[in-house]
Amino acid sequence: MTRFDTITTQLAAQAIELPSWAFGNSGTRFKVFSTPGTPRTIQEKIADAAQVNEYTGLAPKVALHIPWDKVDDYAALRDYAGERGLALGTVNSNTFQDDAYKFGSLTHTDAAVRQKAIDHHFECIDIMHATGSADLKIWLADGTNYPGQGDIRGRQDRLAASLGAIYARLGDSQRLVLEYKFFEPAFYHTDVPDWGTSYAQVAALGDKALVCLDTGHHAPGTNIEFIVAQLLRLGKLGSFDFNSRFYADDDLIVGAADPFQLFRILYEVIRGDGFGPDSTVAFMLDQCHNVEDKIPGQIRSVLNVQEMTARALLIDREALTAAQESGDVLGANGLLMDAFYTDVRGDLAAWRESRGLAADPMVAYAASGYQQQVAADRVGGTQAGWGA
Amino acid sequence: MTRFDTITTQLAAQAIELPSWAFGNSGTRFKVFSTPGTPRTIQEKIADAAQVNEYTGLAPKVALHIPWDKVDDYAALRDYAGERGLALGTVNSNTFQDDAYKFGSLTHTDAAVRQKAIDHHFECIDIMHATGSADLKIWLADGTNYPGQGDIRGRQDRLAASLGAIYARLGDSQRLVLEYKFFEPAFYHTDVPDWGTSYAQVAALGDKALVCLDTGHHAPGTNIEFIVAQLLRLGKLGSFDFNSRFYADDDLIVGAADPFQLFRILYEVIRGDGFGPDSTVAFMLDQCHNVEDKIPGQIRSVLNVQEMTARALLIDREALTAAQESGDVLGANGLLMDAFYTDVRGDLAAWRESRGLAADPMVAYAASGYQQQVAADRVGGTQAGWGA
Amino acid sequence: MTRFDTITTQLAAQAIELPSWAFGNSGTRFKVFSTPGTPRTIQEKIADAAQVNEYTGLAPKVALHIPWDKVDDYAALRDYAGERGLALGTVNSNTFQDDAYKFGSLTHTDAAVRQKAIDHHFECIDIMHATGSADLKIWLADGTNYPGQGDIRGRQDRLAASLGAIYARLGDSQRLVLEYKFFEPAFYHTDVPDWGTSYAQVAALGDKALVCLDTGHHAPGTNIEFIVAQLLRLGKLGSFDFNSRFYADDDLIVGAADPFQLFRILYEVIRGDGFGPDSTVAFMLDQCHNVEDKIPGQIRSVLNVQEMTARALLIDREALTAAQESGDVLGANGLLMDAFYTDVRGDLAAWRESRGLAADPMVAYAASGYQQQVAADRVGGTQAGWGA
Amino acid sequence: MTRFDTITTQLAAQAIELPSWAFGNSGTRFKVFSTPGTPRTIQEKIADAAQVNEYTGLAPKVALHIPWDKVDDYAALRDYAGERGLALGTVNSNTFQDDAYKFGSLTHTDAAVRQKAIDHHFECIDIMHATGSADLKIWLADGTNYPGQGDIRGRQDRLAASLGAIYARLGDSQRLVLEYKFFEPAFYHTDVPDWGTSYAQVAALGDKALVCLDTGHHAPGTNIEFIVAQLLRLGKLGSFDFNSRFYADDDLIVGAADPFQLFRILYEVIRGDGFGPDSTVAFMLDQCHNVEDKIPGQIRSVLNVQEMTARALLIDREALTAAQESGDVLGANGLLMDAFYTDVRGDLAAWRESRGLAADPMVAYAASGYQQQVAADRVGGTQAGWGA
Repeated sequence: MTRFDTITTQLAAQAIELPSWAFGNSGTRFKVFSTPGTPRTIQEKIADAAQVNEYTGLAPKVALHIPWDKVDDYAALRDYAGERGLALGTVNSNTFQDDAYKFGSLTHTDAAVRQKAIDHHFECIDIMHATGSADLKIWLADGTNYPGQGDIRGRQDRLAASLGAIYARLGDSQRLVLEYKFFEPAFYHTDVPDWGTSYAQVAALGDKALVCLDTGHHAPGTNIEFIVAQLLRLGKLGSFDFNSRFYADDDLIVGAADPFQLFRILYEVIRGDGFGPDSTVAFMLDQCHNVEDKIPGQIRSVLNVQEMTARALLIDREALTAAQESGDVLGANGLLMDAFYTDVRGDLAAWRESRGLAADPMVAYAASGYQQQVAADRVGGTQAGWGA
Repeated sequence: MTRFDTITTQLAAQAIELPSWAFGNSGTRFKVFSTPGTPRTIQEKIADAAQVNEYTGLAPKVALHIPWDKVDDYAALRDYAGERGLALGTVNSNTFQDDAYKFGSLTHTDAAVRQKAIDHHFECIDIMHATGSADLKIWLADGTNYPGQGDIRGRQDRLAASLGAIYARLGDSQRLVLEYKFFEPAFYHTDVPDWGTSYAQVAALGDKALVCLDTGHHAPGTNIEFIVAQLLRLGKLGSFDFNSRFYADDDLIVGAADPFQLFRILYEVIRGDGFGPDSTVAFMLDQCHNVEDKIPGQIRSVLNVQEMTARALLIDREALTAAQESGDVLGANGLLMDAFYTDVRGDLAAWRESRGLAADPMVAYAASGYQQQVAADRVGGTQAGWGA
Repeated sequence: MTRFDTITTQLAAQAIELPSWAFGNSGTRFKVFSTPGTPRTIQEKIADAAQVNEYTGLAPKVALHIPWDKVDDYAALRDYAGERGLALGTVNSNTFQDDAYKFGSLTHTDAAVRQKAIDHHFECIDIMHATGSADLKIWLADGTNYPGQGDIRGRQDRLAASLGAIYARLGDSQRLVLEYKFFEPAFYHTDVPDWGTSYAQVAALGDKALVCLDTGHHAPGTNIEFIVAQLLRLGKLGSFDFNSRFYADDDLIVGAADPFQLFRILYEVIRGDGFGPDSTVAFMLDQCHNVEDKIPGQIRSVLNVQEMTARALLIDREALTAAQESGDVLGANGLLMDAFYTDVRGDLAAWRESRGLAADPMVAYAASGYQQQVAADRVGGTQAGWGA
Repeated sequence: MTRFDTITTQLAAQAIELPSWAFGNSGTRFKVFSTPGTPRTIQEKIADAAQVNEYTGLAPKVALHIPWDKVDDYAALRDYAGERGLALGTVNSNTFQDDAYKFGSLTHTDAAVRQKAIDHHFECIDIMHATGSADLKIWLADGTNYPGQGDIRGRQDRLAASLGAIYARLGDSQRLVLEYKFFEPAFYHTDVPDWGTSYAQVAALGDKALVCLDTGHHAPGTNIEFIVAQLLRLGKLGSFDFNSRFYADDDLIVGAADPFQLFRILYEVIRGDGFGPDSTVAFMLDQCHNVEDKIPGQIRSVLNVQEMTARALLIDREALTAAQESGDVLGANGLLMDAFYTDVRGDLAAWRESRGLAADPMVAYAASGYQQQVAADRVGGTQAGWGA
């Protein structure tokens, strides 16, 4: 039994949720490029997501974004996904694209606007009941652009009250995860800018409220694996939004900018019992494929998570603890680096094949002709993007 | 003669160029909010810009963005502006919104795409001849999102060649200013990321090529006034794009995020002879008014520059030099701070009135009814934004 | 009654604690410059601190650092200070200079080292009883330089246990304030890197444990006034360590790097009822005067805090709320800026004189001859610094 | 012939210069920890450096720091090194530890201080003649802590003049490399803060003046490989100071913080012909081993550079160019990542053995007993550090 063999059971249980919006067009404030074959509907997004799962076996769920993915019949959508081997996952609310939210949503000074935003979340909870989704994810664009524009303290109090109303509506098996973000779209202050704020808010709500950690939403230099360890310790890590960044919230493919950071994050997940059958941490992607192909972009992403998980699982934790306790700095660091530098790709390919999957999912997808097919089929209509 | 009286001659010569696009809608990748009264045409933008100049006497020029501001008859546009007391200023090119530029423009590996981008600049130069504009500003969105996506070195060489072709087309009294930007819209590498790159490129072109410094385009913590001093020393500071930032390229009102920084920048401008009748440095705004009113936003901006210029002019430079040379750290710093903390607003208001301008341009504009008028008049059509 | 007159009662109650170590030499890892007249003993530091209070009336307390300020008889030290009009303030512990702490103190894997660090805090508490100090401040240098060197999660658990032991020893009227710091001296991970960690740790301890916010201990771009507002809202803002920074933990004179930020911070303090007779927030300086004179550096610092407090108190909060609620972005921001740009120095000088203080404390101190006197008197011995 | 076999000739020519000061004690402003066996003299530092070369075959040169490494007889020192298989490399000047330099050295307003600093460099050049060193490295600590403290522009002019005097003294085969640094020990402005400044200064000097790039001396988020590509393109990359950082100038083991970044840097070195027999780029380490063992720290460092060089050499550049030119973003990135994820350690171990070196230098050094021997032998005296 090789070292790799000892971790395959754990790897087999890995599941990563795909964001429906990753299959639509995205871009910057300067330009959104479109590409042939881009889905026009949530059904086409789900079909694309099914491709990712077919070749990797890693992505059995698709997260929805409301209203971008609104349909008349969610039970039918659930069946549609089910037929393609997928479940519907986290429901993401949107309180940043309605004109009413120009100066805030859950934090707005106007009670009517706050209620509108709360009602939107009630609608999302209704959808969750229909789709069987467990998690309601709230990413709040609320904030201000200029000092004095808003009352930071008052907004925080109103946020607490609004979240309380939403929380009270959750079903017994439903959860609320509150995402934090350093900045953007607001440029002076953000109402949930850091893990401390998200933690303080969800701690006040109750056990079904947790923090969502988006790996791209931190200040430069932030040690993200520390936050992972801390939130797991506090019992409040609800979910991940995986992506990567060089500068701001770049939303690049997870592991693309700093693979070693992804490795360290996954190590702390494992160390803190956030990985495995007993964990309730949800692993999601949240990415933009502005210039690269979208389906292969998602395949590459889940493979990156899998490869780094394998490396992190290979760390000799007993030896690591011994080195740490003896003050052997280079020895302890060396044990981590040894696992990081181990090339697990061959073992993973063989193991994939043993499970009836493609040895190289990227190559297999490219050879499948799917991309050419959808490019030919999906003519006319409006390609999906962030606005529709 | 008060201390303030000694600087009014210098203040009277101050001129700040307004960007036509500041009067259109702008926003983030998440949402562009529209507002009643937003211009539909370049003529309406110019009419709005004329308001800024009418109340402040500070903004006699409007910069154009091609193709957003394309018209059939630029001579007529020049006359239209002239009738409103304005000249047409810098022409800004755009090589980031055509599908052909997905992987680069002046740096593209495909010679045909590069030629297309070069031709666009030839067109801009033709427009400059018609409008009487002196400066061609090139801000390049070129870059890559993933390591390996492009050949950094090869792109730099192609950039040099493309710029050379454009430079050769300039008229005798025309200049090329090359703007640099730390990141966005590209997230891994940007082809002109820093002043060093812009300087190296324009130095290779010749005397008519200079650097454009956008105050929002630097890494966190960058000492911008140092760059101002250095570029003036090297004779290569062509122009400013004024705005302010807390995080990334926020494009907020100049002076809004860090007024002390604006003061320090303007001091180095003055110190390095970049201000005044003999200076060839162009002062422009480049801002986005995502959530605030646009015309008052521009009025506020030029006033901020004026107020900080006044403060910087008030510095007792003789005493400062003496303190610096004697190693009196607190004394030297105190001289700077004394000027910064001096409230020049009353003096400026009185001086404005003495010149037939409104004492408080913000109040005067608000009282004018112009905003209500254009909101009523400008019904129908498509509001201007970055896409049109 | 002028607008300024309305705030003098509030200003009169302001008190800022001085750090004893600001009067000793400090520097960087590259060099510590010494200066004539630098104190050799805690008594001389207190004498210097008394100068700051004499000319400003703002600094009635001196914080101690143990072991740097250890004496045999703390009651005598208290009397010594009292005779000079000062009380002894916060006691700062030191767990970063003993060889035993190379790999951690309160977080160390070795129970004996942890106990040594805990015992040091017990000693500090004993000193507090003797000096009458209310607050025990813990800034922890614990952390690691290389990934894998330590077990982030285990260290956090041990920190909680160690803090628990210290907390249990506090007297009824004593408090523990836990300072957080982004990085330095550790370069990979810091055990208390952010306000969230400090908050989570002190919340688990009880009501007498609070967060200490050092204004220089954040990631680039962090909105510090948001944290102030949040901690006041959560009832957990114990104290400030005031200083300023351009890059890292520069420990410059408070307000020197970004006066507008200091203004915004003080506004949130006032907005959140952290200022005034009913507030329990302690205001301290924590600075290094590497190249500037130390006593004038401290005078400048407390004046900066006073001047910015005055400006923040001048904000028309009623009008601000109205502007905020009506979505008047420029109006709301303008109200803040109006207060910030108001030159309060003349009013403050007159008010100081009316209270028997020097109109210009910087000038008065310089004219006093104290600096020349101590330079002449303090010959021989070892100048105080961080190591002694 | 395997893929690895194709790159061994290139690897065999690799040489990395060790800094003498890496073998002495170092730390932060808070504490410098000492360790048994730390050298007391430059001879002992050289003996330690020889160990690194003995086990790796990668480190045939030692850089000196003047005055820390001053001796009476440099020819004897050269021989001493030669007997241990080492040459003396770059000479590093020091203008930051003399009291005269408190407010600057080459930039000081006082001509006498500038001359003192220039004379120190003349002395360094004399030493270079005696040691056979080719490069004079100037890292300048000059800068200011407070706005106004110094005249940024005037300092730059004086710097140019001072460098001109030093440059004129260089021998025909000697070079001057000017290092830039973002900040520290100065906290407001640094006189050579970025590559642009270093480039502008050395370009004005002549062909024998080049830029030194320290990988830890950049603003957060800076794309360092871009600078490498640019400086090679401009013919001005003189040397590297390798180390790594998470936050500031952490001076950690190269490759420790972000191995992927080191890989990208080395790829641009190779791409730009900065590696190999025809290159004049000098590769040096500049690190601090504050908490880890020093000799193994240096061994680990040169191995990291070697391993990453091997990976970068393995990139299929032909395929990469094809992918880049066809706009295949994921394909091009995948080619880079494939090389990065290739585990070259086994091949390198076998190749080392084939050359008579230890397969695992870390293990071989640990087994040698050298560390225990020097700890036993080096008793008494003063351990070397930055101050001596």
